[in-house]
Order: sequence, then structure tokens, then C-alpha cells
Amino acid sequence: MSYIQQSFSVQFEYKVFFTEKIFDTANTDFANFLESRAEKGIRKKLLFIVDDGVTKHHDYLQDQITAYFENIDGFELIQDIIVVPGGEASKNDLQLFYWLVNTLDQHAIDRHSYVVGIGGGSVLDLVGYVAAVSHRGVKHIRIPTTVLSQNDSGVGVKNGINYHGKKNFLGTFAPPAAVFNDATFLATLDERDWRSGMVEAVKVALIKDAGFFDWMESHAGLLTQADPASLQYLIRRCAELHMAHIGGAGDPFESGSSRPLDFGHWSAHKLEQLTDFELRHGEAVSIGIALDSVYSWLTGMLDADSLDRIIKLLKELRLPLYHPLLEIEDDQSAIVAGLEEFREHLGGQLTISLLRAIGKGQEVHSIDLAILRKAVNMLRDKW
Amino acid sequence: MSYIQQSFSVQFEYKVFFTEKIFDTANTDFANFLESRAEKGIRKKLLFIVDDGVTKHHDYLQDQITAYFENIDGFELIQDIIVVPGGEASKNDLQLFYWLVNTLDQHAIDRHSYVVGIGGGSVLDLVGYVAAVSHRGVKHIRIPTTVLSQNDSGVGVKNGINYHGKKNFLGTFAPPAAVFNDATFLATLDERDWRSGMVEAVKVALIKDAGFFDWMESHAGLLTQADPASLQYLIRRCAELHMAHIGGAGDPFESGSSRPLDFGHWSAHKLEQLTDFELRHGEAVSIGIALDSVYSWLTGMLDADSLDRIIKLLKELRLPLYHPLLEIEDDQSAIVAGLEEFREHLGGQLTISLLRAIGKGQEVHSIDLAILRKAVNMLRDKW
Repeated sequence: MSYIQQSFSVQFEYKVFFTEKIFDTANTDFANFLESRAEKGIRKKLLFIVDDGVTKHHDYLQDQITAYFENIDGFELIQDIIVVPGGEASKNDLQLFYWLVNTLDQHAIDRHSYVVGIGGGSVLDLVGYVAAVSHRGVKHIRIPTTVLSQNDSGVGVKNGINYHGKKNFLGTFAPPAAVFNDATFLATLDERDWRSGMVEAVKVALIKDAGFFDWMESHAGLLTQADPASLQYLIRRCAELHMAHIGGAGDPFESGSSRPLDFGHWSAHKLEQLTDFELRHGEAVSIGIALDSVYSWLTGMLDADSLDRIIKLLKELRLPLYHPLLEIEDDQSAIVAGLEEFREHLGGQLTISLLRAIGKGQEVHSIDLAILRKAVNMLRDKW
Repeated sequence: MSYIQQSFSVQFEYKVFFTEKIFDTANTDFANFLESRAEKGIRKKLLFIVDDGVTKHHDYLQDQITAYFENIDGFELIQDIIVVPGGEASKNDLQLFYWLVNTLDQHAIDRHSYVVGIGGGSVLDLVGYVAAVSHRGVKHIRIPTTVLSQNDSGVGVKNGINYHGKKNFLGTFAPPAAVFNDATFLATLDERDWRSGMVEAVKVALIKDAGFFDWMESHAGLLTQADPASLQYLIRRCAELHMAHIGGAGDPFESGSSRPLDFGHWSAHKLEQLTDFELRHGEAVSIGIALDSVYSWLTGMLDADSLDRIIKLLKELRLPLYHPLLEIEDDQSAIVAGLEEFREHLGGQLTISLLRAIGKGQEVHSIDLAILRKAVNMLRDKW
């Protein structure tokens, strides 16, 4: 059999910066980054797309960004700063996606230009997808503004929108050019948002880092008061663990079946959809973590003391453990369908992360529905 | 300034197989490939999407594919073979794109499954894009059926659809899992199709391989008679040079401004659009090559003898040198707008490939419109 072999590798690099008041003229982080990307003879454009949840609390942002760019050479700010509705709804709206694609086209944003997304995880997912498919990939910069996006989705390599009610059915893997985590934006989050944002830290600690879990237990009081230093440590450590997994586990674009970072997520994705996204992603994941932890204990994989510590921490962080739509009446229950949808999205064998211990995840390839139902009922009745 | 550094590389590998009668049960090439990708416990699906230009001439294909899969274990053929309209029109139809995305969803095609595209370059571009964005990337196999797709687009890493009249405005870089070049399909191409398909070989020879150009000159007679052995050599050598460039030039996903393989393409893209795709891609590129060769000679970069050889070969292959829409009346002419659109699609500085000699491309960053107009007028009047 005659053939030509193709073989090449592509290197991806980006930095996640930690900063404050990013567009204050005294702050040179963003300007320094742009300077490092300047090329003689090329005038690069920047198009900003901002979550309306951000502009609501930071109405000075447009003026501040305009002023910030007055001192930057070699880059052209598109004066129209685009504001889009925030939250999961922004990922359900195909019209909004095409409106943004058209906006890139109208402003002649090319492959050397940057689309800058400022907002929560949903807006960043949408903006990242718009950038990834326009001209086969315009560069994008992320400025995540929520706890969840600063410690998890915003620092990773995925983007996407929902399609026909299926979460992230359309999307790509496209690393950002840079990420700027600005602590200023966290101060204006409502309580429900920053609280639910901490859950990805609980998750990554549970599967990867027992010491980080210990730290959260001892700082639970400060964390529930949104103590800035504690919140910063939590975000940074969570982002580090998340990024180390993407870069270090050998499968950044998830061509295999293993996805340990999705601990607690199979039921969470389905719960979000069933509640029409009334549940925040972090709240749904908290319930998903509780469910899979109880299931791990019921199958004898996890000891009772560890389970108690997990439930206690989630409760101390005032995160939910149960939702009525979790209820399993029979094999046709909606949440059970979520298992197959989760498998299908990644493909291949069903692979669910469970816990062997705090700090140690373990993958399994089947779920016993009777035990799962027992776990659901415990969450409903016991805590 | 505090930051976390992310850094990883992703390895891409695929083979381009040369075969005949790919779904004849006696041919094990495709089956052997699948076998090499089998994984215990995972039943992988295959969804076929076929160009109607192929089914028209090969109406046995559905039955043949069904029979072929009767002897393959571990893979499930989706019995419905999807037929889509061929040609550039398939890339202009957003409805068709979503219809295919829905088809993948309905058949529960997951990331371990394969979408197999059979057809010309346009259908493969569309199918590749559908696969690349569904579930953030379903694997895809290409079976190109035209000279052009077997020697050029089908063996590369790009996909895309047109949007708002702009060629490939939406798309990604997504290497296929495998490519199968089946010579059988070439026998039923109409003359215009296989003739225009040879032009990418002329192009790649001109910028990279003078010996290949010599070979084409000495085989021009056989090539115009579609002599199978000559056509096979032309396709294989062209595919090799194309793939070596993608894999070997250090920028497979085109993050820089250099794109030597686009020699002759800036005006071709615009001409295709201006003629509403009545001109075949290969015909437009032939005109584009003639134009940029004459321009290279007028600027003193290329000698007169080389220009004569290029024009002579294009004419011997019965490829066009001119189209009335090329006409430049003033700076606002449509074809001149194509220069800026070409720059914008790739971004950065204008970068146009010209010729220093046969086999040697050279990039320039500006085009003199008076000389360009002179080149157009020569193509209109001289040959």
C-alpha cells in the first residue's frame, strides 16, 4: 500500500497574568503584552467584546479603554466597544454568534488582530468561538471577570456555544493569546456568583491536591466572607492545577476518553439544561460533586471520613447538595440520560471520574443505577 | 508582574493513501486503516457524506459501501449515506451546514467516530468544517475525488465555508485522520474538471520544483489526454510538495504572514467570486498564475524565457490566461479590491508570492497598480 506520511507538531504558549485595574493608565501589564507582540509595518487591531454584566457595574470601562489606548503605538482600538448579554443565554443565541462574526468582518479584523473578550465564562466561550472560526482563527485575549472563569474555563483552551439545547455542541480547542485575571472585577460580583465560582477549586483539589483541600477547609470562613487575599490564593492555585493538567497530561485537545477535570460534571451539565440554566454552573457542579462523592463512598471506593469532610466543606461554602430534578424514578429519568449524553460528547467509552481519596481521582467506565439512585436519595434526605 | 506560563505542543499525523476501487471488497486499504484505529470496548461509528457529483457517476457506491462494512468488526456504518450537492455552492449554504450538524447529532456521532467525506474540494471543505466544530472536533476522513482535491486541498489541513460572499470566511485548521486518493474517481471527471485540476501542480512546481516543471513540459501531451499514469505522477508529486510545505515550513496553521502556496491565488479568489463561481477554482488560478508571472517579468524579477515557458505550458494544458473581469479601469476596480481582501484574510502585511525563476518563489509586500494593469492588458491582448 502506497502512501505519503504527514507529521508535524504545533507549539502553543500563553501566559495567565494576575493584575488589578487593568485599564487604569498606571497599569502597564496589558500595554507591555501588546508591545511584546508588535511587528514593524503591521498595524494590528483590537476589537473589545464585553459582557453586559460587567458594563453594568463598571460603566467607566469604555472611556477607560479608550484613554488607555491613546498611549499605545502600533495597535488600533476599534472605538465601538461591543456589549453582549452575559450568562449562559449568550451561548444559546445563534443570531448573536453571527452578529459578532459580522462585526469582525465589518471592522476587517484579520488574523493578526485581536478580539478581546471581557466577561464571565459564557461570554468568553462565545467570543472565543467567534474568533476561532473567523478567517480560520483570529487571535483572542481573555479577560475573565468571575471567580469561575478566572480559575477554570477562562484559563483553558476550549470555547463553544450551545446548539439545539446541547451544551457546547459547537466549539473548538483554541488556546488564547493571553489571559488577564483582574481582581477588580471580582469585587462587584453578586454573592451567588462568587460563591458558586469556588466550586471548581473544590473539584480540582479533590482529584489532584489534598493540601489545597486542607487549605480550603481552614479558610472556609474567610472564603465565605469573600476575603480578597483568600479568594486570590484560591483562584491562582485552581488555575495552576487546571493549566498543569491541560499542558501536562499529554492530551490538551482531548483526543482520548480520559477527562478527570470533569469530576462532578456529568450530572451538572444535565442539571443545568433541565433547570433551563436557572442553576449556575458552579451550583450544578457542587451538586454533581456531592453526588459522585456519595456514589464513590457507596461503592466502597472512598472512606466515610473523607465523604464527611467533602459534604462539610460544600455546606460551609454554602453550596447546594441537591436539586429535585436529580430525582431518579426509573432508568428513563432525565439525569440518567445525562450519562449517555456525557459519554457521547466526548465519545468512546463512558468515563466518569470518581474519588479514591481526597486528592485522588479514579476513573470508572460504568455506573450502577441502583447505587446512583441511593446516592441521590441520600443527598435529598440526609444533609 | 505575576503570571502562570502555559506551554504545550500537539502532534498531528496522518497518511495520504493512493489506491483504486477503495470500496471493492478485494481492497483492504480502508479496512486496514480502521483496524489500526480499533479500540477494545469502543464501537466507533462512520457517517458518510458524499458529493452528488460522485454518486451521479458511481451509483453503485451506496451498495458497495454497505457490502464493504459487512466484514468490518468494531465499527458501525450509519446506513443512511448522506448525499449533498457538489461544487462551490455547497460552501455558500449555511442551511446545508446546519443540516449536516444536525445529522451528526441525530446519529450520535461522537469524538471517537468518523465522518467520511467523499467528493471534490468544496464538499470536503464543508464536511471538514462540520466535523471540526461538532463536539469540538469529530475525526474526519477524506476521500477526494477530483484532480484538484487529490493533489491539493484534500491532502492539507484546512476546511471552511463561505460567508457573506467571502470565500472561506468561516473555517478552521483541522488535520484529517486519513486521506484516501482513489484513482477510480478520476476516470469519470469531465474534461474541464481534470484539466483545471492540474493547475495546482503547475503552481507548486513554479515556486518549489523546477524539475517537476520540466517533467510537466515533457508530458503536456499525455496530460491533456488524461493519460492515467501521467496524471497519477502529477497528483502524487504535487501532493508531496504541498504536504512537505505544510509539515516542513514551521507554520502549518499559518500564524505568520507567509503563504507561498498561494502563488497565483490572490486574484483567483476574487475572480471566482466576481464570476459567481462560474470559473472553476483551477481556471481562476491559471489566470492568477499567468498574471503574477507576467507581473514578475515586468518588474524584472523573472526572465523572458521563463515567462514564455510558463505561458506555453498553461496553453498546452488548455488552461485559460485571461477573463474580462480582470480588467483594471482604475484603483477602484474589483480585482484591485481583491488584493486588500487577500491581505485581510491572512492578516498582517500584504504578502504576495511572485517568481524569481521557474522553481523559485519570492515574496513581495507591495504591488504596483500601473504595472499590474499593464500585465492584465498583456494577458488580454498578447496571447
